[in-house]
Amino acid sequence: MKLNQIGEFKLIEKLVSLLPIDDKDVVVGFGDDCACINVNGKLLLFTNDIQVENRHFIKELQKPENIGWKLISVNVSDVLACGGIPRWAQISLGLPKNLEYSFIEEVYIGIKKALDYYGFYITGGNVSSSNEIILDLFLVGETEKFLSRKDAQEGDYIYINGFTGLARAGLELLLMEKKEYEDFEKELIQAFTKPTVDLSLKSLLQKNAKACIDISDGLVADLGHISKQSDKKIVLFKEKLPVNTNLKKYCEKYSKDIYDYILYGGEDYIIAFSCDKELKHKNIYKIGKVEQGKGIYLKEDKKITKLKVKGFEHL
Amino acid sequence: MKLNQIGEFKLIEKLVSLLPIDDKDVVVGFGDDCACINVNGKLLLFTNDIQVENRHFIKELQKPENIGWKLISVNVSDVLACGGIPRWAQISLGLPKNLEYSFIEEVYIGIKKALDYYGFYITGGNVSSSNEIILDLFLVGETEKFLSRKDAQEGDYIYINGFTGLARAGLELLLMEKKEYEDFEKELIQAFTKPTVDLSLKSLLQKNAKACIDISDGLVADLGHISKQSDKKIVLFKEKLPVNTNLKKYCEKYSKDIYDYILYGGEDYIIAFSCDKELKHKNIYKIGKVEQGKGIYLKEDKKITKLKVKGFEHL
Repeated sequence: MKLNQIGEFKLIEKLVSLLPIDDKDVVVGFGDDCACINVNGKLLLFTNDIQVENRHFIKELQKPENIGWKLISVNVSDVLACGGIPRWAQISLGLPKNLEYSFIEEVYIGIKKALDYYGFYITGGNVSSSNEIILDLFLVGETEKFLSRKDAQEGDYIYINGFTGLARAGLELLLMEKKEYEDFEKELIQAFTKPTVDLSLKSLLQKNAKACIDISDGLVADLGHISKQSDKKIVLFKEKLPVNTNLKKYCEKYSKDIYDYILYGGEDYIIAFSCDKELKHKNIYKIGKVEQGKGIYLKEDKKITKLKVKGFEHL
Repeated sequence: MKLNQIGEFKLIEKLVSLLPIDDKDVVVGFGDDCACINVNGKLLLFTNDIQVENRHFIKELQKPENIGWKLISVNVSDVLACGGIPRWAQISLGLPKNLEYSFIEEVYIGIKKALDYYGFYITGGNVSSSNEIILDLFLVGETEKFLSRKDAQEGDYIYINGFTGLARAGLELLLMEKKEYEDFEKELIQAFTKPTVDLSLKSLLQKNAKACIDISDGLVADLGHISKQSDKKIVLFKEKLPVNTNLKKYCEKYSKDIYDYILYGGEDYIIAFSCDKELKHKNIYKIGKVEQGKGIYLKEDKKITKLKVKGFEHL
């Protein structure tokens, strides 16, 4: 059978089952945003995200500096989703022999800016030739308490710390290859090309969050992971979902269903978490609640609809 | 300028200079077989090695199980070269959508066998589609004392723990795509396709080694790193270089200069180290000595020749 007949999620499930872990220092293995390892009482977080040309970025359409920045951000997002901060990383490069040096230098300038912004270091790396550009980062973070996907409790609220759907609109705009973009369109493109993770959320998560995940595959898909791994139902309140002004303009201009973006757009790299307290913080939105049961539901007035849990397949 | 005009080593030097490290917990950063990080008093080793289809392996000519085994071994070799043992790894996969699942499953069976053999676990991973098969491993090891490339002292001897040149002969044989191979040829091919690292060397290294490196780019190229980073001259004794019987047969059959293989063949994944003691251990060969000066020399009777330090360029 071919891989695209199996699909990404089923493939991962099959491969993970081939590598059982039996190590008392491994607090969490496969199946969350990071693995968690106990090293002399310090909890380390391991994550890695590979970025492949024409799958994750388009060399001709994106600034190389932003490609470097995004490589760092997507990994930092996984560490924050487990309650931690980034500390050290290793990098692997696959580069075509005839690539211009200036391209990879600019990628590295973006990487350096992101390292300075998030406050950590790359400690080593490896390079090979390849046909496509491959950027692979292995990030090690640290945390006081591991926040998992499976600890949502009945009665918790669901919070997010930003808008969803912007990156998908940004990608669509980028692919239009327009000569001129309106200002709001440029901002949406930036949401896709240069996502920024808010590490200041960490202390709030450590104090309050039960289950936690980052929104990379889309709000419903990622809440689907919390729902499945916590064995709980999640009900979203449609009128509470934050609606971004730029996304609204985009959906009006191009006749799109904005809730398709808000619910199913991916690559936002914001955090969704469950918590049993009423939180009143700037840019923290209470969008739903956790109940006994299974699946993700959308509540609008008194109507409740079951949502299809579908995410972006990388295969 | 294009990358192949710059070359791998110069490229790495340029990129590394863009990412300075200022972190008291980073004991060693770029420039050795592993980075070394102090986590609550435990010294962790970080390394990563990317394996790209048709650069590091040829899908049509190698058993997928061996490709998985080798991915693990080449990384374990870097950890041993810093005096450590492997503990945990993360894996990144880039896989063509139309790849047969059975191929990657067999790669994983080889990975599992290697993990069992070396005694550690893969704790997480990431997958994307790509045009070529990409296998990237990030390995975390631990060590009591970091063995670096830069601690060779005048008067030290140079030791290696096995034969060199076999893997290069094995690769050449593989590329001949012969219908039938003689038994000695099969053994040479195995040296290339299924290298095995001898972790039992670790305690001897911890007790005795000063400078240490693994032979991946070729004996002279890798000793060149010790020479350069220790700022010392290394003199090899030609008559002490161990000569493998199978390699001898190969060089006779195909009219090759055996010392070209022994000195410049890569991918052997054995260990070279310097030490000021006389060591008498099975399969440990004393092949040279460390002196004041620069460069790598070959001594035959009373004749001393300066060797060109050239390694395999991955770009």
